[in-house]
Amino acid sequence: MSHNLLKGKRGIIFGALNDMSIAWKVAERAVAEGAVITLSNTPIAVRMGDLNALGEKLNAEIIPADATNVEELDEVFRKSVEILGGKIDFVLHSIGMSPNVRKKRTYDDLDYSMLEKTLDISAISFHKMLQVAKKQDAIAEYGSVVALSYVAAQRTFFGYNDMADAKSLLESITRSFGYIYGREKNVRINTISQSPTPTTAGSGVKGMEDLMDFSNKMSPLGNATADECADYCITMFSDLTRKVTMQNLFHDGGFSSMGMSLRAMNQYSKGLEDYKDENGNIIYG
Amino acid sequence: MSHNLLKGKRGIIFGALNDMSIAWKVAERAVAEGAVITLSNTPIAVRMGDLNALGEKLNAEIIPADATNVEELDEVFRKSVEILGGKIDFVLHSIGMSPNVRKKRTYDDLDYSMLEKTLDISAISFHKMLQVAKKQDAIAEYGSVVALSYVAAQRTFFGYNDMADAKSLLESITRSFGYIYGREKNVRINTISQSPTPTTAGSGVKGMEDLMDFSNKMSPLGNATADECADYCITMFSDLTRKVTMQNLFHDGGFSSMGMSLRAMNQYSKGLEDYKDENGNIIYG
Amino acid sequence: MSHNLLKGKRGIIFGALNDMSIAWKVAERAVAEGAVITLSNTPIAVRMGDLNALGEKLNAEIIPADATNVEELDEVFRKSVEILGGKIDFVLHSIGMSPNVRKKRTYDDLDYSMLEKTLDISAISFHKMLQVAKKQDAIAEYGSVVALSYVAAQRTFFGYNDMADAKSLLESITRSFGYIYGREKNVRINTISQSPTPTTAGSGVKGMEDLMDFSNKMSPLGNATADECADYCITMFSDLTRKVTMQNLFHDGGFSSMGMSLRAMNQYSKGLEDYKDENGNIIYG
Amino acid sequence: MSHNLLKGKRGIIFGALNDMSIAWKVAERAVAEGAVITLSNTPIAVRMGDLNALGEKLNAEIIPADATNVEELDEVFRKSVEILGGKIDFVLHSIGMSPNVRKKRTYDDLDYSMLEKTLDISAISFHKMLQVAKKQDAIAEYGSVVALSYVAAQRTFFGYNDMADAKSLLESITRSFGYIYGREKNVRINTISQSPTPTTAGSGVKGMEDLMDFSNKMSPLGNATADECADYCITMFSDLTRKVTMQNLFHDGGFSSMGMSLRAMNQYSKGLEDYKDENGNIIYG
Repeated sequence: MSHNLLKGKRGIIFGALNDMSIAWKVAERAVAEGAVITLSNTPIAVRMGDLNALGEKLNAEIIPADATNVEELDEVFRKSVEILGGKIDFVLHSIGMSPNVRKKRTYDDLDYSMLEKTLDISAISFHKMLQVAKKQDAIAEYGSVVALSYVAAQRTFFGYNDMADAKSLLESITRSFGYIYGREKNVRINTISQSPTPTTAGSGVKGMEDLMDFSNKMSPLGNATADECADYCITMFSDLTRKVTMQNLFHDGGFSSMGMSLRAMNQYSKGLEDYKDENGNIIYG
Repeated sequence: MSHNLLKGKRGIIFGALNDMSIAWKVAERAVAEGAVITLSNTPIAVRMGDLNALGEKLNAEIIPADATNVEELDEVFRKSVEILGGKIDFVLHSIGMSPNVRKKRTYDDLDYSMLEKTLDISAISFHKMLQVAKKQDAIAEYGSVVALSYVAAQRTFFGYNDMADAKSLLESITRSFGYIYGREKNVRINTISQSPTPTTAGSGVKGMEDLMDFSNKMSPLGNATADECADYCITMFSDLTRKVTMQNLFHDGGFSSMGMSLRAMNQYSKGLEDYKDENGNIIYG
Repeated sequence: MSHNLLKGKRGIIFGALNDMSIAWKVAERAVAEGAVITLSNTPIAVRMGDLNALGEKLNAEIIPADATNVEELDEVFRKSVEILGGKIDFVLHSIGMSPNVRKKRTYDDLDYSMLEKTLDISAISFHKMLQVAKKQDAIAEYGSVVALSYVAAQRTFFGYNDMADAKSLLESITRSFGYIYGREKNVRINTISQSPTPTTAGSGVKGMEDLMDFSNKMSPLGNATADECADYCITMFSDLTRKVTMQNLFHDGGFSSMGMSLRAMNQYSKGLEDYKDENGNIIYG
Repeated sequence: MSHNLLKGKRGIIFGALNDMSIAWKVAERAVAEGAVITLSNTPIAVRMGDLNALGEKLNAEIIPADATNVEELDEVFRKSVEILGGKIDFVLHSIGMSPNVRKKRTYDDLDYSMLEKTLDISAISFHKMLQVAKKQDAIAEYGSVVALSYVAAQRTFFGYNDMADAKSLLESITRSFGYIYGREKNVRINTISQSPTPTTAGSGVKGMEDLMDFSNKMSPLGNATADECADYCITMFSDLTRKVTMQNLFHDGGFSSMGMSLRAMNQYSKGLEDYKDENGNIIYG
């Protein structure tokens, strides 16, 4: 159901790959809410993924770009303003990748040129995007920019590796640039810290399935889905949230505020009971 | 402009007094977005304030109640369900008062029976509301409950006194009850931490006007207004934010993420320049 | 081994009961480090516990007092200054109790007079202590005051109930009073947020043993012991930490900064493996 | 006065330049507390600064190294173990520099190769240090590692520029590596977030003097000095803090927990009064 929350607005969505991507859902929802958009991803992602199909469906032009390349980002904003017929009202940054994770380098055996890439792709690309946009004056007054993050920016999850550091950096850039773009153009910049979802930065992370089970059982409302995340992004792009900026907004069913839930503890204790069988100590019947 | 975001939803708004109240603005916006509501405030506030006019305008019944009184709260929920024709989808708690602040007792000279009242009125009333509602099963699945808070829950502001402690307690209750109501009924509970506004808990706080100037100059987007807060509340009551719970959401133009802005520092330095005039040290020209 | 870190200092230790109490360990360590102290606990705790033995051993006078009673607290400070021969340099508040937990009232079925007691005993007692001390001017310049807290002040743990709210309130009081006592007398006030220990507020909390196992496996250094907590308190009472104030200091082996550890996940997954046996999905071999 | 808190311990201090450096003070205090140490800084800093004098005074060998160079860091740890006769018990990382700040590039006009340098020097150097040390197994069980940070990691200060992002990254690395080094070797890793001091990362930051005045007036205990920071580092290196890890510890006179102090507001309002003179509104007499 549409509420016309983004009627007449222009947006750029970075990072949609296939119909499991959060960015894909956001693109669909944004258009359903009345926006016109362009889509961007790396040339290889455009070739390998299903982005062309999405573009056709949404009548959205695809502008391939390496988000670590300032010139290409410059082109994305320039073309988008041209194609969409005016300044940009909202931007989604849904980009993250760690070569160290992919190559199974553990955190105490990082390759530093790979770390540099992790940070450049997953965090500094956001600064580049904002700097390019601001230099062009491409974002409209009261525009809204969102990047997707994860609670690993605050707390350590085994196996999440240097992506945790990238997310911390991403959230810091959000604050630092949010100050400047806010005071000068009333543009707000926030991160949404999303539950682990089957599609995102999680892939390649060790024991992902069990972690998602834990996260789901810890969260009183369960893990948030990609569709729900798209809904939340729409509110952040709408005119109803104009004074929210420099924030990291948890969209996680409550996970971030939990220390231990009964459901997760019951699961945790199953193993304990087995372990304790010999002593006859069964704690949860 | 309405987006029908609350079409068919039923709500209770606690704490509207006059047209400067945030709760007043929320009531107006909620009805504009398609909701039906009831209004509640203390009997004395109902008599002294303009609530009856609001009720007529919005076709909303007024149910007077002392929010520290469990029986009266029970009545508010019971009657609201009856009047509105079904379970409640959203609740706003906009209640706060400190007798110590009113009586100008400083924080190192608190009257403890007054402190008890501050906490009861400003924080425990929220627990009572939620406990009463849950016992009646008065809130619909996926309902949304919001209480208004202030950044003094995290950081000390001179003169805010025991209201800071009340807000910390309020935010803790939000998490504690959010866990239980979430896991059992998918009800989400959050606080919105709002900029200082001319109407709210601020009245009676020392040097309020200067503090609002500071807050405004620190915040890249300036202080958020009551109207903007009402817009934000609407998004939190809508179905677009179903997985946000147990959070404290800053709606403050960025204040909470600022250490020092150039605008505020320029103001701060004016006094310094005067102070330094004799030495000829002028730092900002 | 003593470092004479508290040589010549005078302290009051509230809350020691028996040799498993953190306060007991702090008392022993403080005296070993050269301090002279008094001990205080409720009259019933003094009768029931082993405090007299501790007093004799440490040559420390015991001053029974109900920490919710301003007059009795006044007496504790007055007598302590007299007995110890000068103003107080450090104070430990290790007091917490929830009648709701004891009576097994769940968080959605709280008795409100019991909640009032929980808050009064576990949090407001700290304000009373500080207000009484400040009015008497009983704490020396650069004195140090510590209260013990728990991470439930930030995140919800099932079964911790209204003690979570009490700890949030305690930490807020720490900030609020820390500001005033700091600016006027250079007295610093902090909380130490300690791992769950077999002796403290944990007793009576549901599934405590399993929670401690989880906490231990989550924390890279394991749970902190009462002895280790005493060591940490000594540093906070010493002159080496004079500019640390209004802080909540986690002493928890790293728990507070963890999202999920491999050790805890392995335990959690044991139950999952059993659950998954039918599908043959075994994730951790 | 020495407490022999580091008796028999071996340490490496990175980043001392002259007698205003925090690292310099830490080196002096560590030796006074019974430690033996080595000192390291860049070759150019060793030539330009007074490090040789410190080395002689403390009988500490100087091992020049570029902290962004893994091989040179490897050498620092290898030599230090050899010179000091055993594994390292404590390490101080006091390193930070932003070419963007130096070249007066504003945050919306960053040079990205300079940003890479800022992050490499100020944050990734810490990871390199830890990874090198762990691969050599150069840090003793229960060792303690501290890096110096600043509250700009959490909140935006105008002019602090990309150093804010570097500090956020530094604190994230602290958590990420703290987990691994903790679980495997009981090594604890923390940051100390220090008041602005005349000597450190502050130099080159716009309006530093006024900011320090603001920080001082906001902090109930005033800004913490370099000497006081050294004292605090000693407690973190001692055996009394063995279960504190993955934390960011504010050593700032209370600044981080302040929203607004009366002293700072009085200063702020001086300018307001002038501004308001025409209206005759004088708020603080």
